[in-house]
Amino acid sequence: MSEHRPSHAELVAFLKAEFPQNRCTLEEVDEDGSVVVAHPVGERELRPGNTVSGPVMMTLADVALYLGILARIGIVPLAVTTNLSINFLRKPRADRRVVARCRLMKLGKSLAVGEVWIFSEGEDEPVAHATGTYAIPRER
Amino acid sequence: MSEHRPSHAELVAFLKAEFPQNRCTLEEVDEDGSVVVAHPVGERELRPGNTVSGPVMMTLADVALYLGILARIGIVPLAVTTNLSINFLRKPRADRRVVARCRLMKLGKSLAVGEVWIFSEGEDEPVAHATGTYAIPRER
Amino acid sequence: MSEHRPSHAELVAFLKAEFPQNRCTLEEVDEDGSVVVAHPVGERELRPGNTVSGPVMMTLADVALYLGILARIGIVPLAVTTNLSINFLRKPRADRRVVARCRLMKLGKSLAVGEVWIFSEGEDEPVAHATGTYAIPRER
Amino acid sequence: MSEHRPSHAELVAFLKAEFPQNRCTLEEVDEDGSVVVAHPVGERELRPGNTVSGPVMMTLADVALYLGILARIGIVPLAVTTNLSINFLRKPRADRRVVARCRLMKLGKSLAVGEVWIFSEGEDEPVAHATGTYAIPRER
Repeated sequence: MSEHRPSHAELVAFLKAEFPQNRCTLEEVDEDGSVVVAHPVGERELRPGNTVSGPVMMTLADVALYLGILARIGIVPLAVTTNLSINFLRKPRADRRVVARCRLMKLGKSLAVGEVWIFSEGEDEPVAHATGTYAIPRER
Repeated sequence: MSEHRPSHAELVAFLKAEFPQNRCTLEEVDEDGSVVVAHPVGERELRPGNTVSGPVMMTLADVALYLGILARIGIVPLAVTTNLSINFLRKPRADRRVVARCRLMKLGKSLAVGEVWIFSEGEDEPVAHATGTYAIPRER
Repeated sequence: MSEHRPSHAELVAFLKAEFPQNRCTLEEVDEDGSVVVAHPVGERELRPGNTVSGPVMMTLADVALYLGILARIGIVPLAVTTNLSINFLRKPRADRRVVARCRLMKLGKSLAVGEVWIFSEGEDEPVAHATGTYAIPRER
Repeated sequence: MSEHRPSHAELVAFLKAEFPQNRCTLEEVDEDGSVVVAHPVGERELRPGNTVSGPVMMTLADVALYLGILARIGIVPLAVTTNLSINFLRKPRADRRVVARCRLMKLGKSLAVGEVWIFSEGEDEPVAHATGTYAIPRER
């Protein structure tokens, strides 16, 4: 494992430099290593039925997992998703950001597994739940 | 089931009207109901390591599943994804479109299940494989 | 929804009557509807490497989901799994039961979605995590 | 990769020695590395609704993936499942064996990913589809 856990500012700078198109924002990095990431919701995130599109929530889940792992192992740009599975639970609100909290279930030498709960901001019931696996490069 | 299978042109028009931000293109609708959908790859689809980002492939998988279902049941805008699971298999090429083929495994009254294989255009080995479930609204 | 939430004893009796081969035991049914289910671990549950076999944990996850749903909707024998996804996180102990806690994420009219955490009894770190979807028959 | 692809007889002997409780049988090992595995269906495999229980199909999927990988990399008992996701598509017949065909999607140095189609013997429509990932130990 990396000896250095990156700060909130370092993760934000990394995200901005490496994923300039990304619209997710890192909201929190908690002591226990969980992270909170948000995505704006506007015209281009909505789909028929006036709800947030699935790809927006999948993008949010993927970024939350990625930052959740980097927050723990240090900034390792070449970590790659090997598997992501998402259940869509409820219709998200069209007038709120979607917010994801990622917590790692396992942080091994070569694989990290995390879960992500997604909410419409300020609501109690989750709109989606994802689990994902990342492969961590051997030499770092 | 709808009695009318939409044409390629009808599906394209629907996609354009309802998902104007979407960058996927419908390439083929086959007799057996499988569909082929592509996504361009350029600066904004790439991530560190010079590979296509996971969210681009998840978006492509979701759109391919959606069009694969609509091609069979008719244009039912309120069909919603309930579950999507994707395995990332190989690094996609940075200089080719990604192309997805969706085939339905099951088309029931209330649920449709499909699988999607994703390739870098012109390559033989898949870069990702997804399965997904859509809930089909009762009254239509 | 059923108006009657079954008691612990009713669920145990149902399990015994309908799944006589089943070796899982229902340990708890909590107020919030989460359930705890256990599976013994002995010679026939172990595999090379002296660990609990994957199918034992998948069986436990499936039974925990099933009972977690029946505890909420009443005894509906025809509810069927439509999807189950499991991540194996750590090697379970060979000398302890495996214990699963299921909590529902969503209980809709036609679909229920739950998550299951599995532990070696008495240990803090989970050995597996599963999510599953059940289709609930319309008329009951 | 191992230089030795095991024979059908070697895989059967391994299965018998290491998983004596297992009731799956290896039916075929094809040139392309896909394998066919079957599970008997009798009283103890059935559940309410007169259908094959989910755990039987998950067990079959897991064994098919395991043998599908060993058929390609050689007999490596410590390969372990890291993820398995299964979609149940149709009600299996109560009077036929269930038969699974596993084909690998990816065989990497540290991870193998495969898919499994499950059928009631002699039927055309699949009853279930699974994908799974196995971690392959480094030194072998």
